[in-house]
Amino acid sequence: MKTSAVFYHAGCPVCVEAEHQVAEALDPNRYDVEIVHLGEQKSRIEAAEAAGVKSVPAIVIGGAPFHINFGAPISALKG
Amino acid sequence: MKTSAVFYHAGCPVCVEAEHQVAEALDPNRYDVEIVHLGEQKSRIEAAEAAGVKSVPAIVIGGAPFHINFGAPISALKG
Repeated sequence: MKTSAVFYHAGCPVCVEAEHQVAEALDPNRYDVEIVHLGEQKSRIEAAEAAGVKSVPAIVIGGAPFHINFGAPISALKG
Repeated sequence: MKTSAVFYHAGCPVCVEAEHQVAEALDPNRYDVEIVHLGEQKSRIEAAEAAGVKSVPAIVIGGAPFHINFGAPISALKG
């Protein structure tokens, strides 16, 4: 069974680079990678925060949050 | 040709988790991943800094630095 990986971003340049260089680098044979734009999918913010995501871009792999560089705090994406 | 990826760490718990969950998640068919312990291989610090690494753990993929969470500043590994 593949491990779930969710890449959260907000369309920022730092996010786009991380998506192309890190999220897309994961082994597709072992990981199911989902890309979520939190600016456009605000209903997903709650789950991201519950997983420990504090800023974007970030990737949650097997439930563990990894913040990749820094684009924006998650608080800036609310409202 | 595979893309070069260098994962820099210092043995810290944050580093070990990032190594196991992110560095080892990269697709081995597309990436050559090297793991470098900067605390033990201080001669590699200069190249890490030249690539833009400011803290560990970090992974340099195709020349671009990505800091993953935060374990220690690279300055703490010198001397």
